[in-house]
Amino acid sequence: MSELKNDRFLRALMRQPVDRTPIWMMRQAGRYLPEYRASRAQAGDFMSLCKNHELACEVTIQPLDRYPLDAAILFSDILTIPDAMGLGLYFETGEGPKFNKIVRTEADVQELKVVNTEADLGYVLKAVSTIRSELNGRVPLIGFSGSPWTLATYMVEGGSSKDFRHVKAMMYNTPEVMHQLLDVLARSVIDYLNAQIRAGAQAVQIFDTWGGSLSDVAYQEFSLKYMKQIVDGLTRENDGAKVPVILFTKGGGQWLESMADTGADALGLDWTTDIGSARTRVGDRVALQGNMDPSVLYASPEKIRSEVKRILESYGTGSGHVFNLGHGIHQFVDPENARVFVESVVELSADYHS
Amino acid sequence: MSELKNDRFLRALMRQPVDRTPIWMMRQAGRYLPEYRASRAQAGDFMSLCKNHELACEVTIQPLDRYPLDAAILFSDILTIPDAMGLGLYFETGEGPKFNKIVRTEADVQELKVVNTEADLGYVLKAVSTIRSELNGRVPLIGFSGSPWTLATYMVEGGSSKDFRHVKAMMYNTPEVMHQLLDVLARSVIDYLNAQIRAGAQAVQIFDTWGGSLSDVAYQEFSLKYMKQIVDGLTRENDGAKVPVILFTKGGGQWLESMADTGADALGLDWTTDIGSARTRVGDRVALQGNMDPSVLYASPEKIRSEVKRILESYGTGSGHVFNLGHGIHQFVDPENARVFVESVVELSADYHS
Repeated sequence: MSELKNDRFLRALMRQPVDRTPIWMMRQAGRYLPEYRASRAQAGDFMSLCKNHELACEVTIQPLDRYPLDAAILFSDILTIPDAMGLGLYFETGEGPKFNKIVRTEADVQELKVVNTEADLGYVLKAVSTIRSELNGRVPLIGFSGSPWTLATYMVEGGSSKDFRHVKAMMYNTPEVMHQLLDVLARSVIDYLNAQIRAGAQAVQIFDTWGGSLSDVAYQEFSLKYMKQIVDGLTRENDGAKVPVILFTKGGGQWLESMADTGADALGLDWTTDIGSARTRVGDRVALQGNMDPSVLYASPEKIRSEVKRILESYGTGSGHVFNLGHGIHQFVDPENARVFVESVVELSADYHS
Repeated sequence: MSELKNDRFLRALMRQPVDRTPIWMMRQAGRYLPEYRASRAQAGDFMSLCKNHELACEVTIQPLDRYPLDAAILFSDILTIPDAMGLGLYFETGEGPKFNKIVRTEADVQELKVVNTEADLGYVLKAVSTIRSELNGRVPLIGFSGSPWTLATYMVEGGSSKDFRHVKAMMYNTPEVMHQLLDVLARSVIDYLNAQIRAGAQAVQIFDTWGGSLSDVAYQEFSLKYMKQIVDGLTRENDGAKVPVILFTKGGGQWLESMADTGADALGLDWTTDIGSARTRVGDRVALQGNMDPSVLYASPEKIRSEVKRILESYGTGSGHVFNLGHGIHQFVDPENARVFVESVVELSADYHS
């Protein structure tokens, strides 16, 4: 593997000194970019894009060619594991992800296909190694997975949900079956992320998109517990380099202390949390990633710049901050506004590092 | 007006001793009840039900005839004010509320019709006085309004939204226009709630359904500031009785301290906040209302009961707690499960009051 030319992102995750705050954007390879839409049109549908390692590599690198970003993130879907378990993932236009089979009973959980990561998710690993090779040390590559709870919501609801009616009924009525499902998922995620690390991922992020739908107590028992199991099970070193782990629970601002207790290296923050207060709360236990409201990218360049400044000021001086949006970049954002955002972080952040 | 026979709810809001924890449910008059669906079918569409004071009174009282609830809440819609401003509210089946006119520019704000509460919203006031008279002192009647920010989201987006793209662009790009709109709304809400109080509302709740979509800083400036303006402008006494004010920001668990600073009597909590920790944070400044996850009502009677017990235990002994769900009751809930919920609070809560 070629030497890493830009290690700002990895250093900030480990709270080591950096010359400026590193930046990447969740969903940076996405529909807001015309070149992404062209690649996707070439692939056909969304899953065909994920399963074609050359096109997945192409779209992963597109935002790096436009903006001075400090990390690349594997282009893939969060639902690859449930798909590999035999649920039959498909996408309906304008409707989000759907599954042919749903999981609601103990029998359903027992019928899930045991995932053989190398065989069933080889297309993801091939994408990782292709991207890593193509990056040639330009920036680090982030691997990722959905959290067990987040994957379970889609598997039980059969797709996206507003009220999580079925998955919560299952959780409250048959907690032991929900725990079985979450344990199977946690073990699959560990295998999956470790395989991504072996294939070349230099950091990994666990996306807990729907942990914030849970009560305080249920979050600890049904989401955080399994993310801790994953953190404990990951190979956190590869080829002599540390592989940091980032936990991101959207809507998890009230639970940062217990998230830090998992032993993760960094926590992702959505925009509802003041990053300066978050830093005070977690101390030097973890780095923080975030946290500009993605909707600020609909505003003027001046406003984007002033929001970047405000967040840098709130975090304060010293390392341990990875700049990002508080959630994925929206599809209707003007790519020029994304440029203003990234360049503002590059230009304004050096003052916060000595 | 006849004497109030059950003042538990009002006493708890003022943190005065009670024999047991009072309970009501957000959206307790709603689609989960067959008798509500019958009244609504009789009215025709949703707004016709709101505008018919006899039917609005009928559906307000229906849940009280089923369950031992400690408060009634006016049956109405949160978008009556924007409708009275001339935006033309209508409901499309399965699509939620929509407006014929949308508000995005300074000219749009200036063209808004000045609301004359008595004339334009007389149907709501008539419903309040009818319900109050029909209740005949059985339980107190709660009046309500949407918060200025929440109303603005619908007025600018033209209906419901997932990403609040237009309203946030307006807020970030033309904050002075957004402040004009929010100020007009705050003044209308003050008039509206004061008129509800004069008509007989014995407590009022401000529903800030979408404040939780904002960043920490934007919440303070664009939502909380205007709710404080409302709290300051309300007539908080009527006929010699104090009229308590409840603030509820869904997703506002991180901001309870500043919400308590508004001078409101009570804060509503969604289910993501541990009510015991919330009590520690706000001390004796405000009462707390909440906060069971509405999805627990899809669970078994045993589980519903154990969640009620857990929340009572978390709040602890003494007054200042009004039991409620953390958001409105879902339409697919079995009314018998709602009964188990209410009766569990009635049965289990006396132990927490001496």
